[in-house]
Amino acid sequence: MDPRVHEHAEVLVDWSARIEAGDDVVLSVDEGAHDLAVAVAEKLGERGANLVTTYSSGEVSRAYLNAHDDEFESDPEYELALYEGADSVLSLSGSRNTTAMADVPGETLQTAGKAKRKIREARLDTRWVSTLHPTRAAAQQASMSYEAYCDFVYDAVLRDWETLADEMANMKDILDAGSEVRLVKEDTDLTMSIEDRVAVNSAASVDYDSHNLPSGEVFTAPDATEGTVYFDVPMTINSRRVRDVHLTFEDGEVVEFSADQGEDALSDVLDTDEGARRLGELGIGMNRGIDRFTDNILFDEKMGDTVHLAVGRAYDSNFPPGHEDEANDSAVHVDMITDVSEDARIEVDGEVVQRDGVFRWEDGFGG
Amino acid sequence: MDPRVHEHAEVLVDWSARIEAGDDVVLSVDEGAHDLAVAVAEKLGERGANLVTTYSSGEVSRAYLNAHDDEFESDPEYELALYEGADSVLSLSGSRNTTAMADVPGETLQTAGKAKRKIREARLDTRWVSTLHPTRAAAQQASMSYEAYCDFVYDAVLRDWETLADEMANMKDILDAGSEVRLVKEDTDLTMSIEDRVAVNSAASVDYDSHNLPSGEVFTAPDATEGTVYFDVPMTINSRRVRDVHLTFEDGEVVEFSADQGEDALSDVLDTDEGARRLGELGIGMNRGIDRFTDNILFDEKMGDTVHLAVGRAYDSNFPPGHEDEANDSAVHVDMITDVSEDARIEVDGEVVQRDGVFRWEDGFGG
Repeated sequence: MDPRVHEHAEVLVDWSARIEAGDDVVLSVDEGAHDLAVAVAEKLGERGANLVTTYSSGEVSRAYLNAHDDEFESDPEYELALYEGADSVLSLSGSRNTTAMADVPGETLQTAGKAKRKIREARLDTRWVSTLHPTRAAAQQASMSYEAYCDFVYDAVLRDWETLADEMANMKDILDAGSEVRLVKEDTDLTMSIEDRVAVNSAASVDYDSHNLPSGEVFTAPDATEGTVYFDVPMTINSRRVRDVHLTFEDGEVVEFSADQGEDALSDVLDTDEGARRLGELGIGMNRGIDRFTDNILFDEKMGDTVHLAVGRAYDSNFPPGHEDEANDSAVHVDMITDVSEDARIEVDGEVVQRDGVFRWEDGFGG
Repeated sequence: MDPRVHEHAEVLVDWSARIEAGDDVVLSVDEGAHDLAVAVAEKLGERGANLVTTYSSGEVSRAYLNAHDDEFESDPEYELALYEGADSVLSLSGSRNTTAMADVPGETLQTAGKAKRKIREARLDTRWVSTLHPTRAAAQQASMSYEAYCDFVYDAVLRDWETLADEMANMKDILDAGSEVRLVKEDTDLTMSIEDRVAVNSAASVDYDSHNLPSGEVFTAPDATEGTVYFDVPMTINSRRVRDVHLTFEDGEVVEFSADQGEDALSDVLDTDEGARRLGELGIGMNRGIDRFTDNILFDEKMGDTVHLAVGRAYDSNFPPGHEDEANDSAVHVDMITDVSEDARIEVDGEVVQRDGVFRWEDGFGG
């Protein structure tokens, strides 16, 4: 086995999820993530954690969902009990075909998603971490060779996370002190309120309220969104390719939308529920170790010199204790990314924080 | 996909597990059982059952167990809750390497097994069914080509189960009416009490108290075992090959044992706990559709003209209601098989029931 698989497992278990003896861990293994699962199981055994391993297969889900009559039972008790009792859920994605669920109707996915609201909440209440084991299918989605993709993934994952966390603290401080963010670029002039929100310095560890490995973004939960935004980075929503999305917001809600490709997939997402038309997240990508788009949100949204916005569910961690019920509620959380490396600026309370991809604390900042 | 995979899934879901709408199903998927999992998930979706899919990997288990310090927590609550809430557990074995756990110490397996006693009981309290998806590793263990092994498996699984159930009812009637079984063959003269026991007509359906697919055996729970027995069919215990086992019983307990190969594995089993030295099962193999030994207990013990005995745990279904607490208790249940097709006889209360592989209701019975 590639020694980096073992290093990946160690970062996941120790830095990201902070697993300790006696922790009740659910390890979710995708079809192609077997090798990482073996390495993670070894670490969990060393730490003396308990282990339940689930199988997360697009093909199994597709077969089940497409055969079902869509009258899904809400939050089956046995599954809920598993996640309510868990201390940590480690999800190892690793598709053998990233479009395995392409022919599951969006409505079915929505209905199935809504039926598992409490189960999703229970998972999010654990020290959950999502990561990815490189597969040939993921390499293909990134238009890369498998070897090069493996290097890409491990470069992004096996980082000096403490140093990156210190760097990102600058951005967190600015957002915590600010009340309004404005994003300006081609086809884009968007303002959002971030008053009384807590920005998260997402350093790939639950100790930083960060649940993705790799990470490297600072995110908050905006509301009162007004204006228009253009997402020029392609993405995959529910196995469908979506390109060149334009959204127009009024009073915090999407009132117009379009996409040059995959508009149906976008429409399915926005129609899921009321919260699906409001923003759940504003994220500033700051991981310059991720140096290219690979059509995978786990990596793309962390890339340096990008901004992403998610419609749908907001994270509790962006709200002061006792105010978590103000978080936008939805069965979905779908991120969309825009490149801010050129002809773009981010303002907080009228002051430019980043222009053309350079932060104001960096050399070369244009003001 | 081989159309027989879909037929297999249908037999499993409908005939074996009797799945209905709203059932809470745990589907346990081995590394090589993916295709059957997809077909089963489709059937479960059609029936409107709920689905939690777990991953059962020898390599994951090995990595976890060998890294652990053996101080296992007893029945972690989150895992117990999953199985206590489940209506059915469908286990799809399908190894990619049947000896994946060969270097896990027997003591570790014992300790880990003991720590999950309640979880095991909870699984056994569901409508559980174990079956096998043919893999190249299983074919290799059977010393067969993959193609021929697939034919073997589907011939055994895709049967007219109702007709076989009627045939096996003869043997159940004899055992239910009898008090003592005697088995006589080379190096073997063993007597067992079956007084007040209920024989199970194991027709591969939970409606027959039968939990294996394929099945095709009639089994009961003997005690007061006396004498010696020789198992001439090779077997694999905890990934280790075991051959030519001799056991001597006194007062129901193994007092002497030997094996020409794998005696350590046998010794580990017998030392698990007190119940591991007593019999938990006497089974009469009656599935003549299984026409060869394939070194897999799921099939071998069902083969016509064989008898198997298991040390360890007895099944509650062999006891009248209210008497389940008389069942031999153990963390293990390990079957051993002896060929009775030649120079052998089975007696019940002194009357010969089968001689040289011919039952007394069949043509050619020698009396």
